[in-house]
Order: sequence, then structure tokens, then C-alpha cells
Amino acid sequence: MWADLTLGQVFLAEFAGTAMLLLLGGGVVANNILPKNKGNGTGFLHVNFGWGIAVWMGVIVAFKTGGHLNPAVTVGLAVKSVVEGMGVNWAQVMVAIVAQFLGAFLGAVLTWLTYRKQFDLSEDKGAKLGVFATGPEDRDYFWNCVTEAMGTFVLLFVIVAAGLIGGKPDLGWLAPMGVAFLIVGIGASLGGPTGYAINPARDLAPRIAHAVLPIKGKGDSDWGYSWVPVVGPMIGGILGAVCGGLLVAAF
Amino acid sequence: MWADLTLGQVFLAEFAGTAMLLLLGGGVVANNILPKNKGNGTGFLHVNFGWGIAVWMGVIVAFKTGGHLNPAVTVGLAVKSVVEGMGVNWAQVMVAIVAQFLGAFLGAVLTWLTYRKQFDLSEDKGAKLGVFATGPEDRDYFWNCVTEAMGTFVLLFVIVAAGLIGGKPDLGWLAPMGVAFLIVGIGASLGGPTGYAINPARDLAPRIAHAVLPIKGKGDSDWGYSWVPVVGPMIGGILGAVCGGLLVAAF
Amino acid sequence: MWADLTLGQVFLAEFAGTAMLLLLGGGVVANNILPKNKGNGTGFLHVNFGWGIAVWMGVIVAFKTGGHLNPAVTVGLAVKSVVEGMGVNWAQVMVAIVAQFLGAFLGAVLTWLTYRKQFDLSEDKGAKLGVFATGPEDRDYFWNCVTEAMGTFVLLFVIVAAGLIGGKPDLGWLAPMGVAFLIVGIGASLGGPTGYAINPARDLAPRIAHAVLPIKGKGDSDWGYSWVPVVGPMIGGILGAVCGGLLVAAF
Amino acid sequence: MWADLTLGQVFLAEFAGTAMLLLLGGGVVANNILPKNKGNGTGFLHVNFGWGIAVWMGVIVAFKTGGHLNPAVTVGLAVKSVVEGMGVNWAQVMVAIVAQFLGAFLGAVLTWLTYRKQFDLSEDKGAKLGVFATGPEDRDYFWNCVTEAMGTFVLLFVIVAAGLIGGKPDLGWLAPMGVAFLIVGIGASLGGPTGYAINPARDLAPRIAHAVLPIKGKGDSDWGYSWVPVVGPMIGGILGAVCGGLLVAAF
Repeated sequence: MWADLTLGQVFLAEFAGTAMLLLLGGGVVANNILPKNKGNGTGFLHVNFGWGIAVWMGVIVAFKTGGHLNPAVTVGLAVKSVVEGMGVNWAQVMVAIVAQFLGAFLGAVLTWLTYRKQFDLSEDKGAKLGVFATGPEDRDYFWNCVTEAMGTFVLLFVIVAAGLIGGKPDLGWLAPMGVAFLIVGIGASLGGPTGYAINPARDLAPRIAHAVLPIKGKGDSDWGYSWVPVVGPMIGGILGAVCGGLLVAAF
Repeated sequence: MWADLTLGQVFLAEFAGTAMLLLLGGGVVANNILPKNKGNGTGFLHVNFGWGIAVWMGVIVAFKTGGHLNPAVTVGLAVKSVVEGMGVNWAQVMVAIVAQFLGAFLGAVLTWLTYRKQFDLSEDKGAKLGVFATGPEDRDYFWNCVTEAMGTFVLLFVIVAAGLIGGKPDLGWLAPMGVAFLIVGIGASLGGPTGYAINPARDLAPRIAHAVLPIKGKGDSDWGYSWVPVVGPMIGGILGAVCGGLLVAAF
Repeated sequence: MWADLTLGQVFLAEFAGTAMLLLLGGGVVANNILPKNKGNGTGFLHVNFGWGIAVWMGVIVAFKTGGHLNPAVTVGLAVKSVVEGMGVNWAQVMVAIVAQFLGAFLGAVLTWLTYRKQFDLSEDKGAKLGVFATGPEDRDYFWNCVTEAMGTFVLLFVIVAAGLIGGKPDLGWLAPMGVAFLIVGIGASLGGPTGYAINPARDLAPRIAHAVLPIKGKGDSDWGYSWVPVVGPMIGGILGAVCGGLLVAAF
Repeated sequence: MWADLTLGQVFLAEFAGTAMLLLLGGGVVANNILPKNKGNGTGFLHVNFGWGIAVWMGVIVAFKTGGHLNPAVTVGLAVKSVVEGMGVNWAQVMVAIVAQFLGAFLGAVLTWLTYRKQFDLSEDKGAKLGVFATGPEDRDYFWNCVTEAMGTFVLLFVIVAAGLIGGKPDLGWLAPMGVAFLIVGIGASLGGPTGYAINPARDLAPRIAHAVLPIKGKGDSDWGYSWVPVVGPMIGGILGAVCGGLLVAAF
């Protein structure tokens, strides 16, 4: 459906959708790990559902583009098109990626404003960064990359394979529910070691926001890890989209 | 669809739906925070799902009006209509708001009756109020207002943006499921600091019920905070509806 | 759709569906409160989802009758028909109720067989009864009745009001999902004081099974409470169905 | 729909779907029980939802065959066809079973790679095996078999009975949601004693993977129990499919 959209429309949809994604996604983490919150310590299933619903609502907001909200999705699908000999509108791809990064930045700022007092009251530098960006439980850049690539592989593989099912009916709000539960599932099943960024924009743009915002008592932004949630998802996303396309082609 | 309804029908639908909303919504809080309950201490995800389903069922009951159940929704959509140069039936708007407040009052009374013994057995004045009305974890009227406005902004923005998707199919009971999960998501992601009233009727009418009902061993009704869950949601709801309308207009 | 069914078909559908309801419903309680279970102590949200899915699957199995699985539903809808001047096939009503009790008995036996070792290993007489029948957290027959009536009122009121929405589409497996979440919601919101029997067959038939089965180290079957989850749900169910019908009639 | 598929297509669909099932299903267990995971100790409801979504996504990936992903499903439906005097393509049945075992093996390997560091850091031999294969909380081969048979009986009985509902609409991604919640329900309600393998391929193939993979500090693969999650599910699956067929035949 991108063929019918201007560059401005692509930008607007992906920008608004990714901002919604990060506001709700960052928010559920803040609720869990910052003090003076009613949801403090609720746990990982809470975080999984929070991110699943964040994707759901972000996709609804951006439904004109299908709601990529993720450079690994946009690039993965573009590379799949190239591999299958189909054309790609690279200007739209570039605009979408820029919009995703800017939207993610805005969403992170809005999360910070929503939890402004909780940030001020916390003395845990790691928790403050954790609301913005992911980090590994056990730091090993190679295996952290493998984990992030695996999660993003599943995301793209299932999205493309589900295309197999054919014409999506007019389900309105419910149409993206399958993707929402896919995100819940990836988080629950593959998110343990690294916190499932599975999206370069979701991780890098809020990390930049963490670095530039005047957050009281913040620590460093862990730039040493910052490339992992970019490189892992891009590799996994491209492989997942291409492999999903191969499966589709067999039927 | 309001054009086909009499004032009495608008009243009846919004009254019954908002009563259902508060009975189920207040109930899940009571179950969690009052003693001698099987759900005591289950936690915030439980509360989130309880309120999500409460909205779902309230909307079904009030489906003739679309199930606003919330003055911030009714006024937000009305202001959006004005901004877009369309007409508003202000008599219906007024009747709906009155019905929402009266329904919320009735629902709070029914919650109290359902948990009558649990109220009697508790000595926690704050918990007794918490079944009726929201309160902040960290009291700061300005930032509490920002948090409530942000949650209600998301509610209205997504509702209006989802209109983008077009003709809702005849899904019966499942039609409001998207809104139910939106409420779960707003609670999980943005409800930490203030308990997400995001609805003036949901907070103020039960607070009045708390003040007038003969609840054994109750404390004060925290009138100092009572304006926050009214003003914050109204500002956020109007902004969300108008911004959502601007996004729709771009496509 | 009952008009097309023989008495034998009504019996078979309600019997199989209610057996499925109790096998899955009793099972989630056993998993939570008996020792040597992977789900031991998971909590009330787990129990709520377990019962919601139990209803969902029971309704699918019994879909030819619509899946009442509950005398309060069958009688509530019959009384509503009488009040509205429509005919009732009382033979079908009687057969359905008998099938619901017998099915609930079978389901309770199957739950016991599934958790046979866990029953043998537990020394908690109250937990063993709790897998079969509900009991109050705070014993007060009048208020326990009120709570059970309130939960069943909501069940029937929403079921009838949702009829307002009109023709249910052909959603297959997903059609009863709304009812499943209604059960989750009633449990989460109104199930704290008494454990939400909201169904005479669900409580009394398994209580009889508890009394007659050779369960190792079992205690008494708490017959003093046994009338509450029968009388409360019948009153609430009839009121809910009739009130729901009045709401429908207003549009 | 199998009639339209080549043996190679049956293999491919069941292989890919079962690999997805085990990657996500094994993953949620790893996240819960291995150290250095964000989801460590989240609990049984987390595991239930993880497996439910794993089935959902596996079925989507394998939708061309309907997504059996389980020899107890494939054989149960085949035996039902024989009992009802209909033909069975036994070559497809054999190919599907081989694909299910090989896919489950691959999925288990991918789970291990995703959680490679967590496996290395754990000293709990039982937990390492638990990511691959199920085990009983109380070891009693007869009653463990009964429990596994009961869970698989429910799986097949409901699947066949739900066929009663008739033509499944074109719901795309949402079509398998009912099965996903059935799996959540079987796990929540019947999974306490043995961890609900309810699928010979899901248990035996990963157990073989556990035996052959170079997992650091692993213990034995508990071959003494390994026949239980094969024999129990096969018996229960065949009985469930045949009984479900009998119910269908009564209407």
C-alpha cells in the first residue's frame, strides 16, 4: 500500500506510530523499575504485555504504512523484495527509517515527562537508562548479538509467513492483534538475555534521548553496548524476511 | 450513531455502561487491596486486566452510544467536531455527562455492597478510599496532571486515529476488544504514578460516594487531589482528539 | 436455536460442555493450591484466566445449545422469556439442568483423576475441598449471597445486553471469546470474597463428588455453605436477565 | 486441505512450524528457569502464555497443513478418519511425523543458541534438561501417563468438536487464536503434575537434542521418563479425536 503514499505521509505515519510505541513501551518499563509507581516490581509478563500492546496501538496509529515502526522490518522487507526481483522505493525506505528514529526519540521524551517525578526520586542509574534502552543480563557481545538476531528473525519470518494466509479481512482494531501477541511471545520466549530490542530505532534513539535530556542523577548511556541492538536486529531481520519469502515460494 | 437516539436513550446507555465500568473496575481494586479476598495482593497486571475488561463490558452494555463512559471522551470528540467545523448536539453531550457521573456513582455503591464485609474488616483508610478514587504515589499536582493528561491523550488519540482504519466489521462482542487492550496498555504503561483515572466521572463520582456512604472506619476523601483526575484528563482528552483528527486529515 | 434440538441433543451438548468446564476449571485450582504442581502458588490471575478459558472451551463443545453450562443462565433466560410473554420449552430447560449437574460431576471426577497423586500427597483438607467447591474468605451467609448474586447478575445482564449488538458474525472458535473475558472479569473484579461460583451446577455437583469419591485424607464437604452458591446465583441470574431485557427494550 | 499438498510441502510446513513451536516454547522455559535472564522466576502463567503463543505462531507458519505440529494430532485425526470409514493418506502422515520430530530438534537447538550464555552460567542440571524436555513433579509413571493423556484428550476433543462450529471465516492471523488459548488453558488447568508435553515430538526430539548437544555441565536426559510423554499423549489424542467425532455425529 506504500505505492499510494507521499513521502510526507510515510513520514507522518511512521513518526506517529513509533512515538506511540516508545511512549507505551518505555512507560511499562518505567512503571516496573522506577520507585513510587503502582506497578513497581510487577514483573516480566507485565512488561511483555505492555510492549505487545504498545506495538498494537503503534500499528493502528500508523496503519496507512502497515505500521513498520522498525528499521529491521522496513529494511528486511526491502531486501526480500530485491532478492525476489521486485522493485523498492528507496526514498520511502529512507524517509521511514528517519521517521522511526525521530518518533522513537519523541516517544522516549514523552515517557520521561510522564514519569518525571519517578526519575527524580530514583537513585538507580541503571534503572534510569533501562527505561530508555536495553542492556544484557550477561554481557557478551557475540552471544547478545545472536539473541537479538534470533528474536528479530522470528519477527520477520512470521510476518512474512503469515502473508501466506492471504487476504487480511477488515478486522479494524483487531487486525494487528496477531502481531501484538507475536511481540508478547518474542519477549516472553527470547527476551531473557537482552531485553529484546529487536528494533534499532527502539533502542538507539531513546539512548540518544537519555544522553541529551537533563535527567536528574543519570549515569552514562552504555555506548559500548549500543551497536548490539542495531546490528543484531538488522542481520536477523534480513535473514528472517528472506527465509520467510523462501517458505512462501514453496507453496 | 447518536443522531438516531433520544436524550433518554443516551442517558440510559451511558448510565448503565458507566455503572458496569465502575462495578467491575472498583471491584478489581477491592479484590487486590482489601483483606479476606482470594485476589488479595495479586498485583498490578491483575488490576490492569480488570479495568480493561470493565471497559469492554461497559462498552458492550452501552453500545448504542458507542460506549463513551467518560466525559473526557464525550467532550474530546465534541471539541474535535467543533474544530473540524461540524455540528455538536450539546443537549446530548450534557445528558451523557450527567449519566456518566450518576452511573459511576451507582457502580461505586454496588462495588461497596459486593465487598461489604471486606470493607468492614479492613482498618486501612487509604485502601478503602483507593477502591473508590485514585491517588498519586508521589504527590505533585503539576506532574500528576501531566501524567493523567498523557494517559487520556493516548486514549483519545488512538480512538480517533483508529477511525482511520475505516468501516468496523460486525464483530459483535469482540468489537470493543481493541479498546479493552488499549486500557490495559495505558494502565500498564502510563498508570504507575497516579493510577490512571483518565476519566473525570470514574474518579469524582465514586469519591463523592466514598464521602456520603456509611463506610465503617473510613477516612477523608482527599478532596485536595480531587481536581487532578478531572482537569488532567479533560486537557489530555481534548488535545488527543484534536491531534488525532489532524493525523486523520493528512491522509 | 434450541427449537431445532431434540432433548437428547440438548442433554449431550450441555453434559459435554459442563464436563469440559469443570475439568479445566477445577484443574486450574488444583494446579494452584495442591502441592507437587508446577503451577503451585501462581495466583489469582492464573485462576481467573483458567476459568475464563474453561468457559470458552466448554461453550465451543456445547455450541449447539449456545453453551449455557449453568442453571442460572438457563433459568434466567427462561424467566426473561416468560416476563416478555414468550414461550419456554420447559422440558428442554429441565433436561439442560440435569445435564449440567451430571456433566459438572463428571468433570470433577476427571479433575481428581488428573491430579490423583497431588490429592494423595496433600494434607490440607480445605485445599482438597477447594478444588471441587467454592468457599468464602469471610463467612457471612447474607453478604456471601449478595456477592454471588452480584457476580451472576453481571453475567446475565451483559449476556442479554450484548444481544443488543445484533447478529453475531461467523467467528468460529473466536465467537465465545467475549464470554471468556467476561468470566475473567467477573472473577477478577467480583470473585474476591467467595471465589465466584456464579453457577449452582459448578458448585453443588462437584461438592457431591467430593463427598462420595474415595479421596485420601479428605475433610467434610461444608454443607452449611452449600446453599449459598445455589441461591445467590439463581437470584442474581434471574434479575440480571430480566434487567438486561428491560435495557434492550428501551432501544 | 492436505489433499492438495505434495509430500515435500507437508514436510516443509510441519518442519518449519514445529521448529518455531519449540524455539518459542523452549525459550519461555529457559527465560524462567535459567539464571541471568530478565524473566527469571516470572512463573507458570508466563510459561502458559509463552507456549500458547508458540503454538499460535507455529500454526501460522505451517498454515498450509493446518499446523498439526504434533504426532498426537496427526495420528489422532487419522485414526478418527479410519473409525469413520474415511481414507487416510498414510504417506503424508508418516512424512508429517518425521517433519515434526526434525523440526522440534531444530527448534531446541535454536533455543540453546539463543540462551547459550545462560546455559553456561547455570549449575542446575535439572533446569538445563527442563528447557528441552518435561518431567514430573511427583514421579509415578502410571498417573503421569493419565495426566498426559487427559491433557491431550482435551486438545483433540475440543479441536474436533470445534469443527462442529462450521466454516471458519477468513480471519488471517487471528484464526489460530482459539487454539492458542486452548493450549494456555490446558497448561494452566492440567499441566501441574507433568508440565503438559501433550506432544511426543515436543518432548522426545528435544530430549535427544539435550543428549547430543555439547551443553556445558549437563546431566543425564532422564530416559526412564521419556516414554511417558510419548505414550500418554498418543492414547489421549486418539481417544479425544474419536470421542469428539462421536459428539459431532450426534448433531
